[in-house]
Amino acid sequence: MITLTTDFGIKGPYVGEMKGAILSINPKAMLIDITHSITRHSILEGSFVMEQVVKYYPKNTIHVGVIDPGVGTERKALIIEGDQFLVVPDNGLATLPLKHINPTAAYEIDIKKMESIIGRKVSSTFHGRDVFGPAGALLDLGYEPSRLGKEIGLDEIIKLDLEPKQIDGKWILKVIYIDDFGNVILNLENYERPKYVEVKGLKIPYLDTYGQVKKGELLALPGSHDYLEIAVNQGSAAEVLGVKVGDELEVRLE
Amino acid sequence: MITLTTDFGIKGPYVGEMKGAILSINPKAMLIDITHSITRHSILEGSFVMEQVVKYYPKNTIHVGVIDPGVGTERKALIIEGDQFLVVPDNGLATLPLKHINPTAAYEIDIKKMESIIGRKVSSTFHGRDVFGPAGALLDLGYEPSRLGKEIGLDEIIKLDLEPKQIDGKWILKVIYIDDFGNVILNLENYERPKYVEVKGLKIPYLDTYGQVKKGELLALPGSHDYLEIAVNQGSAAEVLGVKVGDELEVRLE
Amino acid sequence: MITLTTDFGIKGPYVGEMKGAILSINPKAMLIDITHSITRHSILEGSFVMEQVVKYYPKNTIHVGVIDPGVGTERKALIIEGDQFLVVPDNGLATLPLKHINPTAAYEIDIKKMESIIGRKVSSTFHGRDVFGPAGALLDLGYEPSRLGKEIGLDEIIKLDLEPKQIDGKWILKVIYIDDFGNVILNLENYERPKYVEVKGLKIPYLDTYGQVKKGELLALPGSHDYLEIAVNQGSAAEVLGVKVGDELEVRLE
Repeated sequence: MITLTTDFGIKGPYVGEMKGAILSINPKAMLIDITHSITRHSILEGSFVMEQVVKYYPKNTIHVGVIDPGVGTERKALIIEGDQFLVVPDNGLATLPLKHINPTAAYEIDIKKMESIIGRKVSSTFHGRDVFGPAGALLDLGYEPSRLGKEIGLDEIIKLDLEPKQIDGKWILKVIYIDDFGNVILNLENYERPKYVEVKGLKIPYLDTYGQVKKGELLALPGSHDYLEIAVNQGSAAEVLGVKVGDELEVRLE
Repeated sequence: MITLTTDFGIKGPYVGEMKGAILSINPKAMLIDITHSITRHSILEGSFVMEQVVKYYPKNTIHVGVIDPGVGTERKALIIEGDQFLVVPDNGLATLPLKHINPTAAYEIDIKKMESIIGRKVSSTFHGRDVFGPAGALLDLGYEPSRLGKEIGLDEIIKLDLEPKQIDGKWILKVIYIDDFGNVILNLENYERPKYVEVKGLKIPYLDTYGQVKKGELLALPGSHDYLEIAVNQGSAAEVLGVKVGDELEVRLE
Repeated sequence: MITLTTDFGIKGPYVGEMKGAILSINPKAMLIDITHSITRHSILEGSFVMEQVVKYYPKNTIHVGVIDPGVGTERKALIIEGDQFLVVPDNGLATLPLKHINPTAAYEIDIKKMESIIGRKVSSTFHGRDVFGPAGALLDLGYEPSRLGKEIGLDEIIKLDLEPKQIDGKWILKVIYIDDFGNVILNLENYERPKYVEVKGLKIPYLDTYGQVKKGELLALPGSHDYLEIAVNQGSAAEVLGVKVGDELEVRLE
């Protein structure tokens, strides 16, 4: 079972080419489209989506993620082994899903080995088709990851700085995702339930569901992703707060 | 075989989470994406799309549909058994596909049972992942629906009022779907072929295909969905008539 | 293995109906979504996407392509046999993928035979569901194409005129694809690497990757599709040049 998360878009031949490269190696692979509509080059958004997805898949699932602005540069191509596998560029994309797979080892995919396996040169602009997809296909066939590249330390993997910070009793939090409705998801988990959340001078009640405030009003809530979420009932909190993915906010829980 | 029809959109982790929840229970399930782009919360549009799809699937196919504005409220979660299965919220979504599956029994899914099966609490905002998807996965494994909840009467299922009405020789019809081209589909089937259709003071010829009128002109036709359709050759009948899904129109067949 | 490339869009029941028609005949078919977002009726764009995809699939893959503005007219429905199969309307869609499958025979699908196989009348507006999909399903089950229609000459297949032309040392080239970033792909392959490409009075350097010019500047490059490509680093060459798919350009390689 191989899941696919990319920023290739739903037009054009790219998704189809990657699927073909996988199925040429492993014609029985079960391919699961997660999304191909991650915002172009948004590693943080891709990392959040992969995290949410990884939580719900069975052991040994292979998650191929390709949000890869650095393709063609020296950035490594990774296989991370644990309860499940991540096959991703080494650019921070692994940061959030990594927390849920109990990682035991990481490998740097050897481009030369991939070329001998796929029987052609690896393109300098499309590693989804020529590196990540084929590596996923081989893992799904039972290949040991060590056959595809040398082991590296788990601590060598590049990670986004998504640790929530605390200064003078305030949290400095990052917007890690904004969903289609404009709900704002912040990098704070496992906090004690507050009565209010203070952001940008606004005192926002912390409740359970959107319907507990009037239409157009702000609320904070646990959300369905375990992270602190700020929302507007039938509106867009991202617009009201004027924030986008990656922005930092000072937040006080009361 | 499990089909998936939702309003989750193609971005974000939601579709991927639901697929993971299904595949965790039933790793060999064949998942068929119908669409995840039903207009948010449009039960009528979802019902129309599910109806069209159901007609073309083999016996025992399991159709999971999640357009679910009432998630977290008291609305029931249903399994409807017949030639095929519908696994849907009890909000009218079953109305149109129900006509094509020869239903024999309906069941109200027991949330507590689902919690013991999925091994975690059911989220109050995402029954696609925690209730409908897993129930579909279990049916596909051959579970008797009675193991997932108690039987209810088929007549207890909530249905949209989509019976065409007749007053003084005129039909009062509802717009049940508008396709990407602006063709307007009305809730009238099995009518006698007219020469003209009168709508909003316009006398529209009833023909067989779009090309039989000039570009920009209105026509009525049988359509490919068995319902009365009003179209504009290379244009949008929805714009010309100023209608949207759910609107009622007075229609005279002549 | 059956791939699906269409212009049906991702809303509505059409993709789901076609998949159902295939799976009703061949419930074990592996369906691969390539894209359903080809620009409506753009045979050239569809042909380009199918070409790129065909290159990466294993032998005997069945590629169903439905961009079919002439549905319901006298245009033929084709099966083309080679290393892989194309199942497409005879409107030029086969032109580019045909180059990669070593074609050995072509067949005109017999609509009457399809009707007896699917057990209902073929719709005059939806051959994806009633002709091309079912034909793909049968080929995947091992049916000989000759059972589905009579053989026709490979030279009878309608082809788009995509041969690059040369006049007075200039190339007259056609825009065969514009990707999501506005990169312009022209119908010239296997050319000698130039230093410059002259288009619309502009002398554009021929380089290897986008980053070799400043942001906003034009370059020409080999692209990842083997065709001559014109791009703007982090911008849209289609906008800068004012071109769309199908347009012709005078190009000089220096």
